[in-house]
Amino acid sequence: MFYHDRRLQRQVTVDKPDPLFARMLQQAIGGVEGEIRVCMQYMFQAYGARGPSNKYRDLLLHTATEELGHIEMLATAVALNLETAPTEAQEQGAKDAIVGAVMGGGESPRHVLEGMLHKQLLSTGMSAHPSDSDGVPFDMSHIYASGNLAADMYCNVAAESTGRVLATRLYNATADAGMKDMLGFLIARDAMHQNQWLAVIEELGGEAGALPIPNSFPEANQTNEHAYQFFSTSVDGSYPAGRYTEGPSIDGKGEFSVFQAQPMGEEPVLGPARPDSGAQNEQIGAKPAQQIP
Amino acid sequence: MFYHDRRLQRQVTVDKPDPLFARMLQQAIGGVEGEIRVCMQYMFQAYGARGPSNKYRDLLLHTATEELGHIEMLATAVALNLETAPTEAQEQGAKDAIVGAVMGGGESPRHVLEGMLHKQLLSTGMSAHPSDSDGVPFDMSHIYASGNLAADMYCNVAAESTGRVLATRLYNATADAGMKDMLGFLIARDAMHQNQWLAVIEELGGEAGALPIPNSFPEANQTNEHAYQFFSTSVDGSYPAGRYTEGPSIDGKGEFSVFQAQPMGEEPVLGPARPDSGAQNEQIGAKPAQQIP
Amino acid sequence: MFYHDRRLQRQVTVDKPDPLFARMLQQAIGGVEGEIRVCMQYMFQAYGARGPSNKYRDLLLHTATEELGHIEMLATAVALNLETAPTEAQEQGAKDAIVGAVMGGGESPRHVLEGMLHKQLLSTGMSAHPSDSDGVPFDMSHIYASGNLAADMYCNVAAESTGRVLATRLYNATADAGMKDMLGFLIARDAMHQNQWLAVIEELGGEAGALPIPNSFPEANQTNEHAYQFFSTSVDGSYPAGRYTEGPSIDGKGEFSVFQAQPMGEEPVLGPARPDSGAQNEQIGAKPAQQIP
Amino acid sequence: MFYHDRRLQRQVTVDKPDPLFARMLQQAIGGVEGEIRVCMQYMFQAYGARGPSNKYRDLLLHTATEELGHIEMLATAVALNLETAPTEAQEQGAKDAIVGAVMGGGESPRHVLEGMLHKQLLSTGMSAHPSDSDGVPFDMSHIYASGNLAADMYCNVAAESTGRVLATRLYNATADAGMKDMLGFLIARDAMHQNQWLAVIEELGGEAGALPIPNSFPEANQTNEHAYQFFSTSVDGSYPAGRYTEGPSIDGKGEFSVFQAQPMGEEPVLGPARPDSGAQNEQIGAKPAQQIP
Amino acid sequence: MFYHDRRLQRQVTVDKPDPLFARMLQQAIGGVEGEIRVCMQYMFQAYGARGPSNKYRDLLLHTATEELGHIEMLATAVALNLETAPTEAQEQGAKDAIVGAVMGGGESPRHVLEGMLHKQLLSTGMSAHPSDSDGVPFDMSHIYASGNLAADMYCNVAAESTGRVLATRLYNATADAGMKDMLGFLIARDAMHQNQWLAVIEELGGEAGALPIPNSFPEANQTNEHAYQFFSTSVDGSYPAGRYTEGPSIDGKGEFSVFQAQPMGEEPVLGPARPDSGAQNEQIGAKPAQQIP
Amino acid sequence: MFYHDRRLQRQVTVDKPDPLFARMLQQAIGGVEGEIRVCMQYMFQAYGARGPSNKYRDLLLHTATEELGHIEMLATAVALNLETAPTEAQEQGAKDAIVGAVMGGGESPRHVLEGMLHKQLLSTGMSAHPSDSDGVPFDMSHIYASGNLAADMYCNVAAESTGRVLATRLYNATADAGMKDMLGFLIARDAMHQNQWLAVIEELGGEAGALPIPNSFPEANQTNEHAYQFFSTSVDGSYPAGRYTEGPSIDGKGEFSVFQAQPMGEEPVLGPARPDSGAQNEQIGAKPAQQIP
Repeated sequence: MFYHDRRLQRQVTVDKPDPLFARMLQQAIGGVEGEIRVCMQYMFQAYGARGPSNKYRDLLLHTATEELGHIEMLATAVALNLETAPTEAQEQGAKDAIVGAVMGGGESPRHVLEGMLHKQLLSTGMSAHPSDSDGVPFDMSHIYASGNLAADMYCNVAAESTGRVLATRLYNATADAGMKDMLGFLIARDAMHQNQWLAVIEELGGEAGALPIPNSFPEANQTNEHAYQFFSTSVDGSYPAGRYTEGPSIDGKGEFSVFQAQPMGEEPVLGPARPDSGAQNEQIGAKPAQQIP
Repeated sequence: MFYHDRRLQRQVTVDKPDPLFARMLQQAIGGVEGEIRVCMQYMFQAYGARGPSNKYRDLLLHTATEELGHIEMLATAVALNLETAPTEAQEQGAKDAIVGAVMGGGESPRHVLEGMLHKQLLSTGMSAHPSDSDGVPFDMSHIYASGNLAADMYCNVAAESTGRVLATRLYNATADAGMKDMLGFLIARDAMHQNQWLAVIEELGGEAGALPIPNSFPEANQTNEHAYQFFSTSVDGSYPAGRYTEGPSIDGKGEFSVFQAQPMGEEPVLGPARPDSGAQNEQIGAKPAQQIP
Repeated sequence: MFYHDRRLQRQVTVDKPDPLFARMLQQAIGGVEGEIRVCMQYMFQAYGARGPSNKYRDLLLHTATEELGHIEMLATAVALNLETAPTEAQEQGAKDAIVGAVMGGGESPRHVLEGMLHKQLLSTGMSAHPSDSDGVPFDMSHIYASGNLAADMYCNVAAESTGRVLATRLYNATADAGMKDMLGFLIARDAMHQNQWLAVIEELGGEAGALPIPNSFPEANQTNEHAYQFFSTSVDGSYPAGRYTEGPSIDGKGEFSVFQAQPMGEEPVLGPARPDSGAQNEQIGAKPAQQIP
Repeated sequence: MFYHDRRLQRQVTVDKPDPLFARMLQQAIGGVEGEIRVCMQYMFQAYGARGPSNKYRDLLLHTATEELGHIEMLATAVALNLETAPTEAQEQGAKDAIVGAVMGGGESPRHVLEGMLHKQLLSTGMSAHPSDSDGVPFDMSHIYASGNLAADMYCNVAAESTGRVLATRLYNATADAGMKDMLGFLIARDAMHQNQWLAVIEELGGEAGALPIPNSFPEANQTNEHAYQFFSTSVDGSYPAGRYTEGPSIDGKGEFSVFQAQPMGEEPVLGPARPDSGAQNEQIGAKPAQQIP
Repeated sequence: MFYHDRRLQRQVTVDKPDPLFARMLQQAIGGVEGEIRVCMQYMFQAYGARGPSNKYRDLLLHTATEELGHIEMLATAVALNLETAPTEAQEQGAKDAIVGAVMGGGESPRHVLEGMLHKQLLSTGMSAHPSDSDGVPFDMSHIYASGNLAADMYCNVAAESTGRVLATRLYNATADAGMKDMLGFLIARDAMHQNQWLAVIEELGGEAGALPIPNSFPEANQTNEHAYQFFSTSVDGSYPAGRYTEGPSIDGKGEFSVFQAQPMGEEPVLGPARPDSGAQNEQIGAKPAQQIP
Repeated sequence: MFYHDRRLQRQVTVDKPDPLFARMLQQAIGGVEGEIRVCMQYMFQAYGARGPSNKYRDLLLHTATEELGHIEMLATAVALNLETAPTEAQEQGAKDAIVGAVMGGGESPRHVLEGMLHKQLLSTGMSAHPSDSDGVPFDMSHIYASGNLAADMYCNVAAESTGRVLATRLYNATADAGMKDMLGFLIARDAMHQNQWLAVIEELGGEAGALPIPNSFPEANQTNEHAYQFFSTSVDGSYPAGRYTEGPSIDGKGEFSVFQAQPMGEEPVLGPARPDSGAQNEQIGAKPAQQIP
């Protein structure tokens, strides 16, 4: 179960509110690279963790709980970027900060701004929502929790890698010192988490021990002659040589080689359509194609 | 650009059609761990590949094109599992293969079966659709193509890991020799692809060279004191010790340690609601909470 | 604007409630081939209809309004299939009608049934919901209203064709006289609507007058040499000859021929990644691929 | 069943077309607070209404039918805001109305405008679509029809409350007299509907009679000692006192009090992974955590 | 920020694992009436809370944090329902508990069961996922946080009402004492939360003080003559009389009456399509409809 | 199975990079009218093609494979529109090309631009993604593959019609010669494909032979008296006369006529709610409506 403290994990300040940056920050909340994703992914991996003992259940709960605080920080940053104190000053502020400087003045810069801040203005009244920077709501199919510990760890490394890439893009897109401080903190935490999940892979025997994932499937059951071949699909037979075309495989269980892709099967022929299946008569009678026209 | 051959990459045979297994196979087509996902993920990573030269663009196109053939194999397998030759025999077949043996007979086993095969029966007329085994359509937000080569490689390892886990579950769920052959082949290819994408990480300098991703972000800009700390969020201060709580970090750039999570910020106080923002009067006047009741 | 009558467009009766059929009927309500789709598609086409006069706005409103009554009929049919009069009799009814006969008896057939009727039992309390037979909610991106009258008509023919295919599958899946009557009526209406939308194409000049859609785009602006060629992508150069490979084109504006697909462009080379774009260093420096390993 | 009149429920005029406002209006059509939602929600609640008699079925049909006319009004308003009469004048109009005044002139303000009006320009050819102001299509999972009359009424109050909040935000965002007239009408109707659905709650016995919803569940079956306690999850045990922490409960069936949240359960320990479940070997053997590294 | 305790808020036990019930429980996790929804809804309402002071921010955080623990309990219950200790016993267990008793025996009841447990078997390896009982992933557009405190409270009452309805349906669908205990606890908490959010409405002045929501919109700006009228859309002018057709309105600001719906506007006529808009020529030239055929 | 060539089907050049046009091009990639849709639709229709022989399976594979190359061309165009060579020049370029010319200068036009390019900047690092121009990911429910050949052909005509409409809108929205060349090519291919799929209808007997779809459903089973009637739903009995209100039907199997819509059924009365269904007591007891207040 969980507890909360009204205070934030780290202070969030915005020196100069910037509504467009508020919208960009949404990607780090509700984007597929964002914090809801890692928070919920670690939660659900924890809830389904089976053996060894409960060590990894607990580990995952620690970081899931931390990430929940990151959602809170980012949502607070969105709300702060959307506001200034008095109303008239705000319109002036908006003009200065964003539109005026850019657009060369005019009667109503606020109107264009409104045209770019749909959900924030119309749906939330100047605060964050669990959607990405395009207003697309986060969808929980992105919570990867496979029941395989090693697969989940790579899913987590992937999430923290795209997450840190996104955070550095946001860092580069703002000049606000408060925002740079917050993002620099989140970027550091993503660095830790990349290392952390790979450390679990190391505990599980490293790439040689963990791969191929799942390592519980008997290798005799897979088509071993194709298990370490790079398939070239190029019409001219060329391929980009690399670490993956020769030498020992990363998991240490095979030798890389190259195989020119070609049909090893026949053209499939399905049976005719069933009479009650809503097909056209021609599909049911299976009149040969050459007789059709 | 692309070419096709009417023949399959590998022969697909079904010894005994099994409509329920057809539905399970859908997860490998349109599930988030499935083949549409890896095919399109590699395609879009290729289309956006920037430096070094076009090597990785081509590499990604090779494997994307291979995966396209895997979608075709699986879709063919679904169609074959949904059919038997003559209609009457088919109903008998269905009774024998699935329902009869299980359900102890009865007048109309086909009716229950129909109740479990919605999209296949009602929408596709006995063939595959690009949805998962629950009938949820695949959604392209699962195509991870971040513009960062290393992040993308870990996304690909994650995809091939959950993909191989899924394929082994399907392998274990069928007794059909034809299906076991097809799945054993796909399982082998997933093993190769796990190795292949990690081989690219090795080319990029391995974990020490590639991490933290993106490696182009100046480390001075992140909050370095927190970049290698495990944050414990446990109320009692406990934590599960492991490779990630002490020793050198995986990227070789820091030393793991433990930090007891605590608020480093204050409780955030947002400004009152704007008068024209559709809030309640109480939120605009900002009457102190203690005066509300 | 709209009016309603509490009575149905056509009587809906269910002789023997069948919860599994209720679930199948959902496809005709909230499936992409279903009635919400055609109702809303015609509504939105009407709302955006521009010239000639308001004739087609009104035509579309007529049929949209009719379809609204079809949603009502189907939703009523779902509710009736989920109920029987007294509770105890109902459990008996369920046992008789569906599970008992099929599954050979047992202590609690209702439990398996419940396991197959999620949304109906858990979310709606025994009535219809705007989702398909797999419980996937209808999503309004399927409302095609392109602003081009001829394109919209073909979208409507497509919708009524898949809709009638679905309705005949449902007709074939039930033995209930009441349900067959309702579906026979809906199937007749779909026949009319297929004819109706093609009649509008005829009013617009038929295939020769309407195609290529949009007919307002100057033909000189398209790459005319490829406008009537069948592109063969087969590696061996073969192709399935047909009405589309020779003879006058359907729109009467060209002559069909065959073109063997081949690259007419070069391999694209994108610029290196920008330094602030969150890419890996290797992508920014654009070190040649052969130097990478 | 339903009928239509070609005329609108209320005249819709646009004095000065404003494409950006057209985009904002989309939120009231296809947003989760919009008119498709209430229309379809009342329709489906009607279709599944069970006892008392058919009174509430009919009531719901009345208001559902009214809302259908509101979708039509808003869609018409979108189309009118996207047009002006002759093409050249329109470009001039666009420059004047939106971009020119704001952006200080320039060669091609229309281009930026186009960059902000994707679906309207590209997909609908200058008319409305059933999506929100960010272009996210409406998804029917927002149709709440629970089969419980009182729960549905609160869902309806919630929908009309967020709907009126949205409509007032749109009212405040436009200076167009025609648009203010239309929105003032819709805002009035939302006021009525908030009152209307709460009037049904009053008919059902008010808060004391209807709560807790469902009132048909025997109170003896719930854990009554926790049924009127405010759970404090604050680590320091503090909580914000209010009407909900002491005094009689709103439903008149209990007395509010405060409970400091704490674990009343143990740490859950799941069994090891099954051998055939695609887990890693370590999860199957259940090696104790302390032996892993 | 947040903390966690490895123990559960309340003990979760399953006396007799029931995989089908595991699937039904998913609705309470990832259904629109489920715990992810209330947890995240209260979180985001808290993050955007503006005035009065931070009282309601804190209140919302308390209950959001509690709900997070409910997700954990339910996910644990799903995992427990999917397992039994030794593998062979499990297959036996499955046969006994669910399929055998129901289906009258047969060789492979597990196969049918597998056909009904897609995501649990194939995607999560026997644990919970953030999807509903049909496998549809939760989508965050269901997080209602409008920026209006009273509207949000009614959204919360709606969520807790449909949530408690769902929980009682699950309670009635199981005979397992452990599951009944857990659900009885959650049902009690939902009762509290219904009362709690209505208590906030009472603090905000009750229905008379809070309505119409938002109460900050000047009543003079709405079309007051229609603000308390029930609109009858029946073709025959009939309507279901009730508390909402006469007497003082619930908000005490008007008097209910009845208005027979009729067109107060004209048929809208949109301008012809623009020449460059991809319409058909007929729509651009605006040839009168009567001349079309 | 499939092969690839690193070169493009047709050269793609961008004379003057235009990030806003890059965003608009996304609609042709991931919009419902886009190339992913037709590519995957033809693929899945091919995979499920049943009789006549494999002719149409092969035909569909040809065009599906061609469309895959179109996705590649468009994705390359997006990447090229997002880049310019050196960074400083790029910012200058952006200023010149898009914002500067439009907005009259200002300090940071790039900031506004960033506010309009979310996914391209934040998620992909300057390349294409499989989403539409609003950033909404493509969802595979738009892959229509009904199992009925004629229905599928009309779905394909519909897709190519909306696709060509979209492409002409993009053509009209750009002044870039390279982009006009690419779009002119795609527009020509769409013209061919409209003709191609209608040519298959001609092979299947034309409208008279193919309609009503499915032509395998016995006409005696539909309610024939309503199969060729235009239903008028207008309250005043008026209707827009046309080709669809009199004369022979398009399929040659009936005669069009007009029918004034009216209730042919009664008001449906559902049974009371079940006691264990989570309804309110009033719904279970079925107290008559008139006794409720």
